Amino acid sequence: MAMARVPILVAVALVAAAASCSAWEPTIRMATAVDDAVAPLIHALRPLLGSSGELGSRGGVPCDSWRLGVEAYNVRDWKTVPANCEGYVGHYMLGSHFRRDSKVVIDQAIAYVDSLKLAGNGKEVWVFDIDETTLSNLPYYATHGFGARPYNATSFDAYVLEGTAPALPESKRLYYKLLKVGIKPVFITGRTEDKRAITVANLRSQGISGWMNLTLKQPGFHGSAISYKSAERKKLQDAGYVIVGNIGDQWSDLLGAPEGARTFKLPDPLYYIG
Amino acid sequence: MAMARVPILVAVALVAAAASCSAWEPTIRMATAVDDAVAPLIHALRPLLGSSGELGSRGGVPCDSWRLGVEAYNVRDWKTVPANCEGYVGHYMLGSHFRRDSKVVIDQAIAYVDSLKLAGNGKEVWVFDIDETTLSNLPYYATHGFGARPYNATSFDAYVLEGTAPALPESKRLYYKLLKVGIKPVFITGRTEDKRAITVANLRSQGISGWMNLTLKQPGFHGSAISYKSAERKKLQDAGYVIVGNIGDQWSDLLGAPEGARTFKLPDPLYYIG
Repeated sequence: MAMARVPILVAVALVAAAASCSAWEPTIRMATAVDDAVAPLIHALRPLLGSSGELGSRGGVPCDSWRLGVEAYNVRDWKTVPANCEGYVGHYMLGSHFRRDSKVVIDQAIAYVDSLKLAGNGKEVWVFDIDETTLSNLPYYATHGFGARPYNATSFDAYVLEGTAPALPESKRLYYKLLKVGIKPVFITGRTEDKRAITVANLRSQGISGWMNLTLKQPGFHGSAISYKSAERKKLQDAGYVIVGNIGDQWSDLLGAPEGARTFKLPDPLYYIG
Repeated sequence: MAMARVPILVAVALVAAAASCSAWEPTIRMATAVDDAVAPLIHALRPLLGSSGELGSRGGVPCDSWRLGVEAYNVRDWKTVPANCEGYVGHYMLGSHFRRDSKVVIDQAIAYVDSLKLAGNGKEVWVFDIDETTLSNLPYYATHGFGARPYNATSFDAYVLEGTAPALPESKRLYYKLLKVGIKPVFITGRTEDKRAITVANLRSQGISGWMNLTLKQPGFHGSAISYKSAERKKLQDAGYVIVGNIGDQWSDLLGAPEGARTFKLPDPLYYIG
């Protein structure tokens, strides 16, 4: 009897922990059948059970509607993920949902690349953002409240300076496709110039190389992300380059002339940059 | 015994019908507790069971990722809803999910209105699209494959000419708010001029009146929706009006200068207009 009770208690404890929406399994777990479709994992910290916390708490904002509002650029200028949505965002990011959503975006981007009649003159470029577009800071956010806690520049910078951020697998697939067809990747990132060396090392350690430019924010620049990024795209265009595509996780990566011939918005429910 | 079996068989039949994703209940059903939060219903045809067909068929595109791709403007130029997503879109539109998603958009719009310092000079306007923004054609799409079948101008026009399209409750809430604070609603619709009388009658029968302009597409215009709508917004601006807001269900309602000070994209997984 006593022996039989232990697994039941463990199961109850696991269910209770999962239901609290703040319990995460800090060890590596093999991908399940669902994940296999979009393997490999981005980050090993995974929710204890498969429950995706669909709608978040009934008491607050419905978390899936909030996330849709963010992605469709209706919800703007938010500082933190709604408190009741921390568990929802965690499950979304660590489970297969974020990967599935990202895969549809990249499938569209690759279909678009396949549809292009390329000049092949070395002037065609594709603009990439870095954070949450090429590299994922999910290992940081997974232990800092999934965007539900206020931004902490000190701890976040310390994470970036480790240079261990994993590449986003779907974005890497697009990156390789572009290199293959002769479209030159260009990075325009909100990371500052002092992080050039660690950024280059991080990208390379993740198998990403062969870009044409890596533009980082210069000391003293205090404009908006839109003004910074659109001005850098303008410089490319003025130098005779054709921006055939532009991908980012923030609308501020994509808005502001010249936008590029086609833009792609990757999902990001972790933070907002205006 | 024979008496007891009948309800069981009926229940089995209902479950089987719901599982087929193409069975809808053609009679009015009272709103459930979940729906009460966003009552009233838009359309009486409702899925038989509460299952929302979350991800659509595993065999095709994941339907929720496809829908997110549409809303975030990554999936463009599509002709029909993916075949495996007809059931998913039906459940999405008829259940509470579409209403919840729309409510978040309108809550943002109303918070934005509340944040404005209005001049109160009669020059502040808000642009509304009509179809799937102010009036819902869901009663038509619910019996025509929820966008999964090719567009049929004949049957769709016949439906529009009935003049029975219900108002979208969330949009109506915004419309009344604008009237209350003195921002003038302006309709710019892709409906053609020959539908002016029925459109006016339909709007009025749904309790919508007091707009400043109702602009319909003129005979002979063959440009894109973006070029038509942005040119009409330009005319407003040139006449001294300030477009404080702009709401539509298509990105082509919102893109193209002048966009208006702030844009709002309502969900629409039924069709795409470029």
